[in-house]
Amino acid sequence: MAISLRHLIVGSPLRTAEQVHQRLTKAKALAIFSSDALSSVAYATEEILLVLVVAGTAALRLSMPIALTITGLLVVVATSYYQTIHGYPSGGGAYIVAHENLGAWPGLVAAAALLIDYVLTVAVSITAGIVAVTSAAPELLPWRVHLCLLAILLIAWGNLRGVRESGTLFAIPTYAFIILFLLLILVGLFRLATGSLTAASAAPLPVDIGGSATLTTLLVLRAFASGCTAMTGVEAISNGVPAFEKPEADNAGKTLVVMAALLATMFLGITLLARALDVVPVEHESVVSQIGRQVFGAGSLYLALQAATALILVLAANTAFADFPRLSSILARDGYAPRQLANMGDRLVFSNGITALAVLAALLIIIFGGRTHGLIPLYAVGVFLSFTLSQAGMVRHWQKTHAAGWRLKAVINGVGAVATGIVLCVVVESKFTHGAWIIVLLVPALVVLFRSVQSHYLDMRQQVSLQEGEVGHWSQFGVAKSHKVVVPISGLNRAALEALQFSRSLSDDVTAVIVDVDTASTERLREVWKAWGFDIPLVVLDSPYRSVVRPLLAYLEETDRREPERGLAVVILPEIVPARWWQNLLHNQTTLQLKAVLLFRQERHSAPRVVINVPYRLQQ
Amino acid sequence: MAISLRHLIVGSPLRTAEQVHQRLTKAKALAIFSSDALSSVAYATEEILLVLVVAGTAALRLSMPIALTITGLLVVVATSYYQTIHGYPSGGGAYIVAHENLGAWPGLVAAAALLIDYVLTVAVSITAGIVAVTSAAPELLPWRVHLCLLAILLIAWGNLRGVRESGTLFAIPTYAFIILFLLLILVGLFRLATGSLTAASAAPLPVDIGGSATLTTLLVLRAFASGCTAMTGVEAISNGVPAFEKPEADNAGKTLVVMAALLATMFLGITLLARALDVVPVEHESVVSQIGRQVFGAGSLYLALQAATALILVLAANTAFADFPRLSSILARDGYAPRQLANMGDRLVFSNGITALAVLAALLIIIFGGRTHGLIPLYAVGVFLSFTLSQAGMVRHWQKTHAAGWRLKAVINGVGAVATGIVLCVVVESKFTHGAWIIVLLVPALVVLFRSVQSHYLDMRQQVSLQEGEVGHWSQFGVAKSHKVVVPISGLNRAALEALQFSRSLSDDVTAVIVDVDTASTERLREVWKAWGFDIPLVVLDSPYRSVVRPLLAYLEETDRREPERGLAVVILPEIVPARWWQNLLHNQTTLQLKAVLLFRQERHSAPRVVINVPYRLQQ
Repeated sequence: MAISLRHLIVGSPLRTAEQVHQRLTKAKALAIFSSDALSSVAYATEEILLVLVVAGTAALRLSMPIALTITGLLVVVATSYYQTIHGYPSGGGAYIVAHENLGAWPGLVAAAALLIDYVLTVAVSITAGIVAVTSAAPELLPWRVHLCLLAILLIAWGNLRGVRESGTLFAIPTYAFIILFLLLILVGLFRLATGSLTAASAAPLPVDIGGSATLTTLLVLRAFASGCTAMTGVEAISNGVPAFEKPEADNAGKTLVVMAALLATMFLGITLLARALDVVPVEHESVVSQIGRQVFGAGSLYLALQAATALILVLAANTAFADFPRLSSILARDGYAPRQLANMGDRLVFSNGITALAVLAALLIIIFGGRTHGLIPLYAVGVFLSFTLSQAGMVRHWQKTHAAGWRLKAVINGVGAVATGIVLCVVVESKFTHGAWIIVLLVPALVVLFRSVQSHYLDMRQQVSLQEGEVGHWSQFGVAKSHKVVVPISGLNRAALEALQFSRSLSDDVTAVIVDVDTASTERLREVWKAWGFDIPLVVLDSPYRSVVRPLLAYLEETDRREPERGLAVVILPEIVPARWWQNLLHNQTTLQLKAVLLFRQERHSAPRVVINVPYRLQQ
Repeated sequence: MAISLRHLIVGSPLRTAEQVHQRLTKAKALAIFSSDALSSVAYATEEILLVLVVAGTAALRLSMPIALTITGLLVVVATSYYQTIHGYPSGGGAYIVAHENLGAWPGLVAAAALLIDYVLTVAVSITAGIVAVTSAAPELLPWRVHLCLLAILLIAWGNLRGVRESGTLFAIPTYAFIILFLLLILVGLFRLATGSLTAASAAPLPVDIGGSATLTTLLVLRAFASGCTAMTGVEAISNGVPAFEKPEADNAGKTLVVMAALLATMFLGITLLARALDVVPVEHESVVSQIGRQVFGAGSLYLALQAATALILVLAANTAFADFPRLSSILARDGYAPRQLANMGDRLVFSNGITALAVLAALLIIIFGGRTHGLIPLYAVGVFLSFTLSQAGMVRHWQKTHAAGWRLKAVINGVGAVATGIVLCVVVESKFTHGAWIIVLLVPALVVLFRSVQSHYLDMRQQVSLQEGEVGHWSQFGVAKSHKVVVPISGLNRAALEALQFSRSLSDDVTAVIVDVDTASTERLREVWKAWGFDIPLVVLDSPYRSVVRPLLAYLEETDRREPERGLAVVILPEIVPARWWQNLLHNQTTLQLKAVLLFRQERHSAPRVVINVPYRLQQ
């Protein structure tokens, strides 16, 4: 039943042979790979203003210089990635580039940063998308967190079914967003120039907010660090080069240039409008929504803008749902992550990775109460860490390959690495107490985790692998050992009888054991045992603390000690199998506990032992 | 390790013999049993006002008549319970009274209503307690839900350790609350009388709120229904009669009278003050806090009032943590609920019930976002349902026992039953769309659940029980059957070897099976198998959909069909047991899945089968 339910929800299984690949035109590729980067203009300006406003609304005048600095940085980073595209036409994610060129440790640091960032991409994009919705429909504000969780659920569901990254489907909201955003900037600037829109009419709140903090350098750096989230997702194209039409690298490079130009234009335009209209960030409405309402009026163009914003942010989250499982499956294949992350599910997608990402992002959203703002300081650290490692890896790459013009290329990537490295330091320094410390702790913790998983798999392979000479005794396997068999029972019923019956087919040395939790019924059992003529010895164990498991374990250990040369006793557990799944909640709690303890117990005298489940099936 | 961690947190186990009972003086009993009832004055008035204010602040004048009606009802209910105390000196909860006198169905309805109410008591009391805190410290308001969850965690933890209902510990906050509340009312009325406090100075909000709805009868009934939450917990003393000092019933009766008088005084007093001071309910501060701030000023007396309010509400929640597990253990013993709810844990408390209550209450609080108001319509239904059934049961009780003066007693309980029955109808009717429908659906659902659990246990007992004649074949058990044995392996390693070795001690008919998910490595295995001279046949299964479980199941079914007379094949699973618990996440996912499917599978040809786990232990 569970299986058919799953088929209904995620669709019936696909054959391994059904895996297909699709090549993308530049226009479609722009739609697919740029949603993450472009969508960040929906919140980046607001994050700058939110930091500055702490020093009073007068401090907001710094937003434009900060945005210009970030745009300069964007040019440097985009140039660097342009080179990565040509250096790694087979797809150069930060993990691959760093792992190949800088070694395992930097590679794992990049992987940790990327995994964290994918989770944050989902959390930030979804919350920002829902802010776009609640800005237009404030009555939905109390359901903010619920809406976020619903959106994650839908995206995860789509990905579990295996939505292909369909270019056409993605193109509509992405291009709608680009067009509406550019229109917003053009109309806004035009109306400002012609005087049909003025700042005075617009200020949504009294101008005496904040001012409590003075405008320190730290505050400016913090605003810069927040604004740097505008650059998240710039690396997406370099990961996806093989998906482009031939010549892949050239087409990908051109697409990157277009994307960077669009991003710069939109980011600067929206920041300029926010300044010109004296927009102050408020809790209940996004900055973009405030600008849109003033420029377009509260009509259908404004609603279309909000809808497109929400949709492109959802697409951005969807990107992470492709990237996170892909990276974790690569890590799993390299032995750094649990193997089940490398398993393709029924629908040819990495189901475990998708589920893990959805759960982690949902938790983040719940913890932060559906507020984008709290997540931003965590976001920028990982982004710039992977930028820096990826660019530094490219410098080594050029040094090693000595491709044509490698010196210039190495210098360009070197500039990129240094620039993003400095920004990384700025972000960590200025945002440390605001949440960046979490990432600073989490990245090394993840790297240690990757390493211990790997060393565990290596150890295990060594321990379980067999050499030819070692199996020389195979011919002796046929000799039946006479196992010591123990059958714990809770009373004399059909389930116990089945287990006892099976035990006799296995050995002549069987002992039935009952834990005395109810003296009267134990006494009755003893009498029946004798009266019905069972020739298997029945042992009764005391239990002063009402536990069933502990006296049994003690008895087993004692049995093993008495005849150590015969090895560990085999345990046969009678198990009642109900006819309906929910009835399992009503049975076998003790059996389950006992199985877990027998199998996983870590203590001295107790190796794990052979456990045999003999089921007895109920009819209704 | 898990065990020693548990001992550290909840304390080391207690022997069954250590169970003790404590007798309570009237003063201590009042503290213990009245926290639930008295604490409800912290929110009942506010709930009345919240409903009325929808029709504008002018409608608030109806709060006093409504409060007087509720007080009248309280007198009727308290008189009824006074009789219950003398009729059931051994403790007469609604489930026991209804089950004994009205039959199984009404008993189960009462039990369902009570269980729901205990969950709501925890959720409502904790949220109201945290409101008392955030009213005094508004900066904590964003952490409302977190604080509620923390409080539940602490109470659950205390109860899992087995806090005795210590009279002394409980007496301090309860009496502090009573004294501060009475003082608030006295000082408030005195200052109003002397004119040093006036309504005009007090109104915290402009008086133009609401007015959108007209003052309909339905609205008044709804306000009455909300206010009836003041009566929750009145039944507590009648449940706890055996805990009183001798003569138990007399002392319990006197305590009930004192409690009812205090409750009536405090409820009427606070409603009167709210009226006189024109208090309007607001989102961020409770009505009691508003009154306290105006009467006492924002000094230490006010803070003490808020602290005592928060503490008594926590105690009220704690009461439910004693009652819910006790009732569910009674239900489990009667076979209506899963047996594990009847198990006393290490610390002589019903740990499973405590955990279940904490989880359910926490979920409710998360769903309702830590707002008391949303939970109130759900609360009153269960309370009055159990009141009605309990009183109706008492009428039957007097008719059956014919105790001295039974006619009068029956009439008094009859009046109680009718009055609470009418209120029940009013509550359901007026609050139906506001959430009461949830309870109207939930109670029958729970009753059906109780019944199906019971019928399942009865069916099972019949199916597994043995009669003497049936075990006549016992002497034949010794004959070793030659089982068909199947050993699924994932490759040739030590774990697989252990399993194959064990299989040979069980039978001569062993087949090793591998599912071909990686053709290259399967081919290598085939060669090694031949080269190393294994005489067990190796079967390779195809898997076009990458599933390991499905081809194996198909193979097992085919094996069974081939020789049906020899019974089902026995499955031996090699299992890798890691040295550390977290490493389990890295292993045996397929084995686990296979075990679950083999044991719980419901389909036609597949009975559950004997599954043998042969562990191979890793050293690090």
